[in-house]
Amino acid sequence: MHQLDTIFRPRSIAIIGASQFPGKIGWEIVHNIIKYEFQGKLFPVNPRADFVHSMKCYRSVVDIPDHIDLAILSVPRSEVLAAVDECGKKGIPGLVVITAGFKEVNQEGAALEKQLVEKVRYYGMRMVGPNCMGIINTDPAIRLDATFAPELPVRGSVGFISQSGALGVTILSLSRERHLGFSMFASIGNKSNLSSNDLLEYWEEDPDTQMVLLYLENFGNPRKFTQLARRFTRNKPVLAVKSGRTGAGAKAASSHTGALVTLDVGTDAIFEQCGVLRANTIDELFDYATALSSQPLPADNRVAILTNAGGPGIMATDAGVSSGLQLAEYTSGTREALRKIIPPESNPNNPLDLLAGATPDHYEKALDVLLQDPGVSAVLVISVPPIMVDPVKVATAVSRVASRFSKPVLGCFMGVQDILRTIQQTSQSFSCNAGHIRNNEKPASKTADPELHFQGSVIPLYAFPESAVRALNGMVRYAQIRRRTYEEPIRFPVNKTDTENIFRKVHTEERSVLTQREVHDVLVAYGIPVPLICIAKSPEEAAVKAREIGFPVVMKALMKTRQHKSDFGGVAIDLRNTDEVLDAYRHMESRIADRDLTHEFEGVYLQPMVRGGKEVILGVSYDNTFGSLLMFGMGGIYVETMKDTIFRTIPITNQDARQMIESVKGYPVLKGVRGEPSVDLSFLAEILQRCSQLASDFYFIREMEINPFVITPEQNTSLAVDARIYPDWSLLEKESV
Amino acid sequence: MHQLDTIFRPRSIAIIGASQFPGKIGWEIVHNIIKYEFQGKLFPVNPRADFVHSMKCYRSVVDIPDHIDLAILSVPRSEVLAAVDECGKKGIPGLVVITAGFKEVNQEGAALEKQLVEKVRYYGMRMVGPNCMGIINTDPAIRLDATFAPELPVRGSVGFISQSGALGVTILSLSRERHLGFSMFASIGNKSNLSSNDLLEYWEEDPDTQMVLLYLENFGNPRKFTQLARRFTRNKPVLAVKSGRTGAGAKAASSHTGALVTLDVGTDAIFEQCGVLRANTIDELFDYATALSSQPLPADNRVAILTNAGGPGIMATDAGVSSGLQLAEYTSGTREALRKIIPPESNPNNPLDLLAGATPDHYEKALDVLLQDPGVSAVLVISVPPIMVDPVKVATAVSRVASRFSKPVLGCFMGVQDILRTIQQTSQSFSCNAGHIRNNEKPASKTADPELHFQGSVIPLYAFPESAVRALNGMVRYAQIRRRTYEEPIRFPVNKTDTENIFRKVHTEERSVLTQREVHDVLVAYGIPVPLICIAKSPEEAAVKAREIGFPVVMKALMKTRQHKSDFGGVAIDLRNTDEVLDAYRHMESRIADRDLTHEFEGVYLQPMVRGGKEVILGVSYDNTFGSLLMFGMGGIYVETMKDTIFRTIPITNQDARQMIESVKGYPVLKGVRGEPSVDLSFLAEILQRCSQLASDFYFIREMEINPFVITPEQNTSLAVDARIYPDWSLLEKESV
Repeated sequence: MHQLDTIFRPRSIAIIGASQFPGKIGWEIVHNIIKYEFQGKLFPVNPRADFVHSMKCYRSVVDIPDHIDLAILSVPRSEVLAAVDECGKKGIPGLVVITAGFKEVNQEGAALEKQLVEKVRYYGMRMVGPNCMGIINTDPAIRLDATFAPELPVRGSVGFISQSGALGVTILSLSRERHLGFSMFASIGNKSNLSSNDLLEYWEEDPDTQMVLLYLENFGNPRKFTQLARRFTRNKPVLAVKSGRTGAGAKAASSHTGALVTLDVGTDAIFEQCGVLRANTIDELFDYATALSSQPLPADNRVAILTNAGGPGIMATDAGVSSGLQLAEYTSGTREALRKIIPPESNPNNPLDLLAGATPDHYEKALDVLLQDPGVSAVLVISVPPIMVDPVKVATAVSRVASRFSKPVLGCFMGVQDILRTIQQTSQSFSCNAGHIRNNEKPASKTADPELHFQGSVIPLYAFPESAVRALNGMVRYAQIRRRTYEEPIRFPVNKTDTENIFRKVHTEERSVLTQREVHDVLVAYGIPVPLICIAKSPEEAAVKAREIGFPVVMKALMKTRQHKSDFGGVAIDLRNTDEVLDAYRHMESRIADRDLTHEFEGVYLQPMVRGGKEVILGVSYDNTFGSLLMFGMGGIYVETMKDTIFRTIPITNQDARQMIESVKGYPVLKGVRGEPSVDLSFLAEILQRCSQLASDFYFIREMEINPFVITPEQNTSLAVDARIYPDWSLLEKESV
Repeated sequence: MHQLDTIFRPRSIAIIGASQFPGKIGWEIVHNIIKYEFQGKLFPVNPRADFVHSMKCYRSVVDIPDHIDLAILSVPRSEVLAAVDECGKKGIPGLVVITAGFKEVNQEGAALEKQLVEKVRYYGMRMVGPNCMGIINTDPAIRLDATFAPELPVRGSVGFISQSGALGVTILSLSRERHLGFSMFASIGNKSNLSSNDLLEYWEEDPDTQMVLLYLENFGNPRKFTQLARRFTRNKPVLAVKSGRTGAGAKAASSHTGALVTLDVGTDAIFEQCGVLRANTIDELFDYATALSSQPLPADNRVAILTNAGGPGIMATDAGVSSGLQLAEYTSGTREALRKIIPPESNPNNPLDLLAGATPDHYEKALDVLLQDPGVSAVLVISVPPIMVDPVKVATAVSRVASRFSKPVLGCFMGVQDILRTIQQTSQSFSCNAGHIRNNEKPASKTADPELHFQGSVIPLYAFPESAVRALNGMVRYAQIRRRTYEEPIRFPVNKTDTENIFRKVHTEERSVLTQREVHDVLVAYGIPVPLICIAKSPEEAAVKAREIGFPVVMKALMKTRQHKSDFGGVAIDLRNTDEVLDAYRHMESRIADRDLTHEFEGVYLQPMVRGGKEVILGVSYDNTFGSLLMFGMGGIYVETMKDTIFRTIPITNQDARQMIESVKGYPVLKGVRGEPSVDLSFLAEILQRCSQLASDFYFIREMEINPFVITPEQNTSLAVDARIYPDWSLLEKESV
């Protein structure tokens, strides 16, 4: 038995703060539990009431003669601690604290919450909340609706975690409207004891939960989340809305829920690395979820569009192609078979237009042909309301065909709400085409709200082509996530000891920046190529050094203060022999003299000449929520202005590194445009991983930037031209806790 | 009386092809006209029926004793031409041809359509269609629903034009669901006689039409559209969905409606220049329209968010800030006033959280305070379903306050559909807060569908924060469009005659490319600065020429074939005096000799040294639909890869030019980053306009590219470094037609 079963699969429940007055939370919860026909015992507790909702009411939990698995608290804030003590005495293992007014409101509330958490830990309890709207388990063996939402839940295979109580109500009501059923639901509120991580762990093995939806406002323990979610998403999809995306949004989040301000790049990074699909809005979340919960995954992104009207077909094509789907090419067999079905004025194109006269039978036959085509991985069925054809019949005909294939079929039915309402009333008779969903259960009794089992009975229906396309894209993405091979980060052989010594020295000297020499040595120790520091103070010395480096070389004037070298001819490139080096040195010297800069001149430094190189930026920055983030971006002033960068939490895998490189908009430049050769992408990926390893070994690096790193077609000419490293010694204490 | 009044304000209508059978289009139209209580006479025509829908049926229009204003044709394709002839004999001025099967299906249909159009022109008629779903005029003096849509229209102030019949039905049904009423509606089908341009012209002076919505698949006459829409949008908003955005979408569009493949950049350009708000989806279109049709325009983008739940407040903030809205800062007076209204646990922040217990009265008071704050230009009211508060009461309370202010108030009410359904039943009693909308009309009779007048009775309500934010953004954008000053393109004094002579010569020689010298001369004639062509064949000549140009200069080797000059030191920059020029020439010569390239060497060319310049690209390309498009973009390989470019149709105004420059992502680079000075933006705008003038004067330029144009902080150092011009003499014939 899992520890959380006492909360989600209780045999007996006490409602502390049960109320006699409809409209009060303490009444609504009792009412919902009764109405949804909880398969266990319920005990209202309220010292000021003799009975509640026709049930005997107890003065205190300790007075209840039976054992209690779960106590639900809906008492005033000031009475919460005393109530928890009584639960402790009674030996109740599970708590759901509805009461609000804790860290989300003020300092005083935060202090009270701290006491609450300590008490819960002291008694060895697990607690959902405080400041939440309750929990749900639709398992017919449990039937628990311990929320104060106005509508009863719909049975399904989705686990839902909401950090916002208010959105929880909305989500439950949308779930009914959008025909998405839940296995369990938890409004986790301030999540001061039980978090989304605990629920992910709990649901990993739950056969009734096939998908998880998250509404998050902040992360409690992102490292744990990463670890859990990476594993979870290999078997079941996780979809998330994370609000507080913008600076202002994060500020709003922090002022109302006490959540910390977090960088959104960190959220994107973590979701990407864990295979969590991020939705921007609740609407999008439902778009994804209705498809993923009822349809098989597509093999790839090749879609056929079947429609009875041109306009929406074009709109679907636009939305699909611009978001990465591909229009499937039919085989000649398919073409021929279609010609026998479609009206003579139409053509066997993609989109396939059945024209306004299309009957359910036309749809059925055409879909059957399309799904048989090996080049079609998914079908989008569009139907706009014709006057003489019943769209409900179209939807059911299409669903019947779809259930015979293991390819996803999604519907875009304009006026979908009415259709769904009709189907809902007749859907019990359909068979299920998504094997993992149980939808043949009968309502527990006639008095209960009629049980609804939408999933699998019909294909998911959307009101607009764009929503259907979005959902299909989500499926394609999740299919890719599932196909990811599981990798551990590589550990390259590096010289960690030397690096430790360098940092120790910097720490001893209480510096928060490394010298150029130290940076050089750290990078060398971690196998990141840097230019040889090769300085010459005379033409002759330059010639000797150049020969050592190997021709051709670049010579740059070494000036006391930073100056634009190109302004006074302080850079000479492509020097191919001793003579050219001697010549260039003297030429440079005389130019500098011309400009009265001789007092600034300290000689030259020499580098091997790099050809066909591209400038990129690598960075590490420490984020208070996510720990060290690795950044990769294109270099150069324009691109920096455009912020063509990507972040990942560390450590990264080789797969992560390749993905980072492929994700920047400038990737084609790295691959080579206009006949240029590609840079060494594997080596670039290795450098990213070496940076990750460095930042992971020395987590107290607050910031590190290699800008530019010049990556060339060959490994041996790529190098970190300039770099800086800033440790933050306060992190040393923070992380060691 | 306007020519189109015979179609949209007819006194008598003949339905040719009226049917006795419900479900047939010829019956549904008769039925709708009767059911919506047309305020005129209706005559069914069908040689095979004695009566239709209880009305006497005529064998032919010519048998009808009365004068007929409008004939609606729903006969088989083969009978259309004969029917039009009869209409011609009868002297009927207006036609609506529902019948399909013309150019949208095949060559034969296209030929028939050509005959149809000629006949219509011959009789001096105006025609809507063919291949359309009819027209609507909700004016109580007309009451015409001549469509076969299943639902009757809702009265309102929006004119709707749809190029797709199927989407037309959907749009009408959505209009009811989303509570957006129409003044007139036209499904224009193949628009072979009457186009959206005609309707824009018609509605410009129509007091009942305060906004126009367009669903377009292609443009017939984009130049006329530009001219009309530019004027129209200064008084009334025009919102458009243009499908066929992607290449594949455009291909789908062309295969099903016979529309030409058009470049989407052209559409964006034309909408931007005309002030048309483009929506990506029908859903978005309704989001914008419901706000713009009922609320006053905001002064600017400063929004206050009022909510009873934190989560949606954060989501609205995220969506708002990331799309360009700004959170309003309250005055201290506002803060103080709010403190008296909000619960003690809350703070007078933006978003303002009234917490879950908020009553309609709380909303009313808080909204009143917010709307009084001069720093608040718009308010977004969010309400999530609380258990004890009636959201309908919140919506009506909020609407009451909103009606007293001339600032927009938009609502995000989760579960909005139920609320709207309730309000719909009680809305007759509300006063209207949008002056231009008439909403106190009574239903014509009790048998008619109850008239619905949503607009103005309550604030627009959205189901998700993101939709409300999107709508508010649309309002901010339209307010900006309204504030645009009306400008004519500037005509700069240029040497057109010389340029004509150059092109005449190229034409005579049947060339489709100009020589470098010709390009140089054309640019000079149009005041676009080009480098002096200054060639020297010896060190001494170079020194003389350099003195003429003025120091410092850049020297580049002139080679017979194109070579990477930097590879062999073929570029010397910043030469400050005669000696340096002499020296550099000799140095270059000897380097070239070292590399055995002397046979390639033809001397050097000299240019003034340009500092602080940024590379941009200017281009012109001729599009078959839109005519010449002017392109502006950032230069450099990375940016070119990222396609940071913007297009406008020509001619452009100064305002257009400034906007183009400000629209590219690299704009901050032009304005100066890292302490660099801004380039001369006014001069850059002038160069764009000069290019526009050139392309406008010589419309047969198929392609022109100035790449790079180096723009510097000073006008006199900016120049077109490289340019190419390709005329297309076939355009000469095309355009002269």
